[in-house]
Amino acid sequence: MITIISSTNRPASVTRAIADYYATLLQEKGQECQILDLAALPDDFTTSALYDNSGKNEQFNKLSSMIKKSEKLVFMVPEYNNSYPGVLKAFIDGLDYPSPFKNKKAAMVGISSGIQGSGMAMSHLTDVFNYLGMHVLAQKPRLALISKNFDGLKITNKLYQELLDEQIEQLIAF
Amino acid sequence: MITIISSTNRPASVTRAIADYYATLLQEKGQECQILDLAALPDDFTTSALYDNSGKNEQFNKLSSMIKKSEKLVFMVPEYNNSYPGVLKAFIDGLDYPSPFKNKKAAMVGISSGIQGSGMAMSHLTDVFNYLGMHVLAQKPRLALISKNFDGLKITNKLYQELLDEQIEQLIAF
Amino acid sequence: MITIISSTNRPASVTRAIADYYATLLQEKGQECQILDLAALPDDFTTSALYDNSGKNEQFNKLSSMIKKSEKLVFMVPEYNNSYPGVLKAFIDGLDYPSPFKNKKAAMVGISSGIQGSGMAMSHLTDVFNYLGMHVLAQKPRLALISKNFDGLKITNKLYQELLDEQIEQLIAF
Amino acid sequence: MITIISSTNRPASVTRAIADYYATLLQEKGQECQILDLAALPDDFTTSALYDNSGKNEQFNKLSSMIKKSEKLVFMVPEYNNSYPGVLKAFIDGLDYPSPFKNKKAAMVGISSGIQGSGMAMSHLTDVFNYLGMHVLAQKPRLALISKNFDGLKITNKLYQELLDEQIEQLIAF
Repeated sequence: MITIISSTNRPASVTRAIADYYATLLQEKGQECQILDLAALPDDFTTSALYDNSGKNEQFNKLSSMIKKSEKLVFMVPEYNNSYPGVLKAFIDGLDYPSPFKNKKAAMVGISSGIQGSGMAMSHLTDVFNYLGMHVLAQKPRLALISKNFDGLKITNKLYQELLDEQIEQLIAF
Repeated sequence: MITIISSTNRPASVTRAIADYYATLLQEKGQECQILDLAALPDDFTTSALYDNSGKNEQFNKLSSMIKKSEKLVFMVPEYNNSYPGVLKAFIDGLDYPSPFKNKKAAMVGISSGIQGSGMAMSHLTDVFNYLGMHVLAQKPRLALISKNFDGLKITNKLYQELLDEQIEQLIAF
Repeated sequence: MITIISSTNRPASVTRAIADYYATLLQEKGQECQILDLAALPDDFTTSALYDNSGKNEQFNKLSSMIKKSEKLVFMVPEYNNSYPGVLKAFIDGLDYPSPFKNKKAAMVGISSGIQGSGMAMSHLTDVFNYLGMHVLAQKPRLALISKNFDGLKITNKLYQELLDEQIEQLIAF
Repeated sequence: MITIISSTNRPASVTRAIADYYATLLQEKGQECQILDLAALPDDFTTSALYDNSGKNEQFNKLSSMIKKSEKLVFMVPEYNNSYPGVLKAFIDGLDYPSPFKNKKAAMVGISSGIQGSGMAMSHLTDVFNYLGMHVLAQKPRLALISKNFDGLKITNKLYQELLDEQIEQLIAF
């Protein structure tokens, strides 16, 4: 089972739409997958699911259990202020110890409205994931200027399509 | 006005206690300062103060206005999973655009129970702050093994005391 | 005195040409400056000026003394393999201890033929410079797709010109 | 074939001694390996093997061909100024295009006399390797305070031994 994480809690986000698109690409290659959308996080999870409340929020636990059941993870990472969304990291901070990421394998796709393609965000996330014992696929496509290159349903930029195809082949073999 | 940010929403955190200690050091040098404790964030701020709700949460706005009124900021940065706390970044993601950080000056103090002293977290934060136009002081003390080196009221490690003193002198001149 | 470092030893590099252009911008603002071109490094400096030979190579010492005499430094940083040129870091590794960078102020300009604009390289360099006690200006223009935006003598992209102008004003006040 | 890279050109380095030790650990597990010591780089390689001279230096080519013949690489990474040695990056800058690292797998061991264990250096290197298409093992042991924990022939710190053993098992399965 591959889990695709839509790494923002912004409602009805472009990131989520690209996660849906990525799911169709995986399914075309015969891969079973599910989507974990951080928009489903409880509104108060930064207090009700962290620290002394770790593990006590059922809605949070439902999401975190999706991580545990996966062998591979794909993070759709929008660029927020030259790093990853704080909400993604707060979600990670609320996961169990020892980390459910340990010895799993992850891929990332960077998404940005500007020209950077979330490259720095993915570098920071790599530091976090490697620390937690999760291997990261080298190929990290940067989908920059996303409003010009995604029509709401599919990626329209040919180079981006090729990068995603290459990533998926690498991920299956990883 | 210097604002010290306690960069976690963990209740009654060591980070907050060190922020209090740092405030006394600043006051001894004649510097006016205040503490912004992220434990005061509204429980639901990741939905009620972000995206379409940006600017609509009064309790959040009270905290963000402390940033606006400051000329210099000092971030107490605990190490969470080899980076900064997600809650700190979510707070930053909720600030106004253009950023209230622009052209301000920041210092950071890394705090960890382990031996790394939050060095990677401060590197990631520097990427974020520089992107938003805030200059970062080079001196970033790493207070590692904090439970051995802080007694709840003051830093007991002489080297750490010297590093903080040097940082404060640099910050005043910055 | 402001020293502009052309951060590659590639002969007759675009980086050097942009360093020359930057010098004219500084001079127009009444700033005294000089250029340190790493193309002037001795061919064998990685052995003749490092480790036990530190300080023994006169040609290397002439270059490193340009650092010592400067109050502010501006690094022109081409992107090599998603980081800074190895030669720049080897030059830094050969400098005296304690570092001549300590308490100095630096600015950086990223240069790339591709679309990234050397952003990751400048992040890595910031880690190095901050560690050595040198403050880094927040504004780090990324001059991407350089062959389309520099005619050999001057920057032709209006946005890039504005970013460089803003940087220089910030640097003078830094 | 696994190639262990001693990532500095410092003559008779501790890094090289640890590379030798690591080789014995690999051999005990039945793994064939060889050591690529950057101390064998030609003195003038930063001019004679880069840019227009790429591929023209026989001594350099002999070293780079060791990369090509390997399926997996292990980098022994000493900490120089809060990053990797410049000489390592200059060696990488001199390798062929497209990169011989593409689709290979790498592990890293951080080495430092101080307490950081070269963690930032390994983060920077991960950015470079992932960009060049090489996957990086999550486990990156940080061998800090090396003079107390390595007797010239073997690692004497039990935790470090366990971390290296775990890394080697992960590397074989990677």
